[in-house]
Amino acid sequence: MNRPILASIHIEAFRHNLDRVRELAPGAGVWSVIKAGAYGHRLESVLEGLGATDGFALLDLRDAQWLRSQGWQGRILMLEGLFQADELNEAIALDCDLVVHCEEQVNLLESLATHSAHVFSVYLKLNSGMNRLGFAPKVYREMFHRLHGLGHQIQHMTHFANADDATRSPTVGEQMDCFSVVTEGLHGKTCLANSAAILWHRTSLGDWVRPGIMLYGLSPTGQSRDIAHANLKPVMQLHSEIIDIQDLAAGDRVGYGGRFVAPEPMRIGVIACGYADGYPRHARDGTPIWIEDRSLPAGGVICPLAGRVSMDMITVDLRKAPNARIGSKVELWGGRVAADDVAMAADTIGYELICAVAPRVPIAVLP
Amino acid sequence: MNRPILASIHIEAFRHNLDRVRELAPGAGVWSVIKAGAYGHRLESVLEGLGATDGFALLDLRDAQWLRSQGWQGRILMLEGLFQADELNEAIALDCDLVVHCEEQVNLLESLATHSAHVFSVYLKLNSGMNRLGFAPKVYREMFHRLHGLGHQIQHMTHFANADDATRSPTVGEQMDCFSVVTEGLHGKTCLANSAAILWHRTSLGDWVRPGIMLYGLSPTGQSRDIAHANLKPVMQLHSEIIDIQDLAAGDRVGYGGRFVAPEPMRIGVIACGYADGYPRHARDGTPIWIEDRSLPAGGVICPLAGRVSMDMITVDLRKAPNARIGSKVELWGGRVAADDVAMAADTIGYELICAVAPRVPIAVLP
Repeated sequence: MNRPILASIHIEAFRHNLDRVRELAPGAGVWSVIKAGAYGHRLESVLEGLGATDGFALLDLRDAQWLRSQGWQGRILMLEGLFQADELNEAIALDCDLVVHCEEQVNLLESLATHSAHVFSVYLKLNSGMNRLGFAPKVYREMFHRLHGLGHQIQHMTHFANADDATRSPTVGEQMDCFSVVTEGLHGKTCLANSAAILWHRTSLGDWVRPGIMLYGLSPTGQSRDIAHANLKPVMQLHSEIIDIQDLAAGDRVGYGGRFVAPEPMRIGVIACGYADGYPRHARDGTPIWIEDRSLPAGGVICPLAGRVSMDMITVDLRKAPNARIGSKVELWGGRVAADDVAMAADTIGYELICAVAPRVPIAVLP
Repeated sequence: MNRPILASIHIEAFRHNLDRVRELAPGAGVWSVIKAGAYGHRLESVLEGLGATDGFALLDLRDAQWLRSQGWQGRILMLEGLFQADELNEAIALDCDLVVHCEEQVNLLESLATHSAHVFSVYLKLNSGMNRLGFAPKVYREMFHRLHGLGHQIQHMTHFANADDATRSPTVGEQMDCFSVVTEGLHGKTCLANSAAILWHRTSLGDWVRPGIMLYGLSPTGQSRDIAHANLKPVMQLHSEIIDIQDLAAGDRVGYGGRFVAPEPMRIGVIACGYADGYPRHARDGTPIWIEDRSLPAGGVICPLAGRVSMDMITVDLRKAPNARIGSKVELWGGRVAADDVAMAADTIGYELICAVAPRVPIAVLP
């Protein structure tokens, strides 16, 4: 009773990928990063798929509330800390760990101390070169001592800008050097590695790791070939169906702007999926789409996108799938087409695609 | 108690834009297109903002159910018709008008006739050159007669591929010629113009028009200058706040990949908005962002994006806003920065941006 588009979430793939994190970071605590609605996979799926994690890391207190309401008793880390003073009581009630990345947040905890004895587990964030969130090296130790003096339990945290690309500055090595110098002699565990560092910088993990994209089975680089031997499984499969077919004459054009021109008589399939479902509007002609064709030995074949992505539809060149018809199944990404490969054809990374899957796309959680 | 990001929906702008449609298409019936969650504005806002429309056009029967549950008694058009046979009863119960664009849907209505006397208002769709949905000219009249014979009330519909660009083929004129020849002498009203045709092809409106993007105050071309004199108002305003500030030395790099390099000592603001909120990851350095700075006469200033868009944050060059601080307000798009201008800096169109606003972004509906 819907448009035929559907995102399937494979719980077994979640479990497999979390096991891979444990293998790659033995002994480390694992914060599974589930911000952005579990990177578009919806929070509903993570308790079942990632329930063996040590903690969930997220941004919105609403999500923390939801996890507690579902009975999650493990740890919860607020990755950007608190945004406003009025979140303090709720963060205490929900027993959250807090990132502290700016002096306003230190001030907040100091004012809390005037009327509460609550002790937080704090992840104090050092800006070691990414220049996004975190304290400058010259003030980090002062912030540590202010919070330590209040009795909070402090971990040392930083974020790598280029763990996926050794050629860019600042390198992981440069950031590690900064981190080591600044935190030298300070008490507390460390929390360092994102997915790229877990995969490729195994000496820079820290006591706690923060896997994100690898849990969802995609590459930190946005290029599927870079994780070809990492033994990760894609968790999301986005599929739909052909809802119309057009017979074109040579020279006929397809869609807005008429970008695709038929070089010969051919069939075009119209698929119920567009940029308002989260398919990237930048996708070029030739972007891979798997099309069911039961007359073929493999049951289907990769066909090329043909014509500009519209809001609710994409169009595909069916010359390789002569028996595709209205109702034939389509995989936009998942097991047969890597989300990263679709992303690459749209000049972006798989992260953006999976996060952008729209609320109008129903989700099926599969074992 | 949330991240500070918020999308405000201005009801008065909705009403103003619908009035503009009435002025431009006097006497025509108006199908207000609200698919894709009202182009990202959420269905909740349209009954109040667009309640004076003649009907709502959408894709998902779930949305039709929701409109009826809220008391909407006007017409509802299913823009791609029914996707499956099991939707028929619900479409009857909800009293929907149906687009019919493929023979499978004609067959469905024929099988309905064997056990039901229900008569639909049908929008029979002609493929006049866009080559997406619709019947080829050579079969259109046959389909008309089959449905007419069943007693359905039939309107004639087609969709323009290039109403926003007179230089591209097929032109509106070519599609109109096709439409006129194919429908000649057939009974029934017509439904032709999308927003671009309402604005720029006033002789190709039809008895019913289907405004979409212009109701939301954006340009059909994706370029804000093209509607500078159209007297439309943006309905959505996306705003957030600065959540951290970094002091950079010359040569320091910002964010993943270190794309932005500070040419001199300067400040970078970190804003709570990233691609997982719907901000386009393709946005280049220089993309305009309005930043509050109360020390400036205008209360704020447009500053350039600096560094790659991350999942939850963007970074902005604060050299023009010397007194911006943590907590300063930010407008990503709306009244001061056109969504189309942000889109243009990301090689896309405003449509994609507004549709992509993520469910984690709260909505405030304002009078």
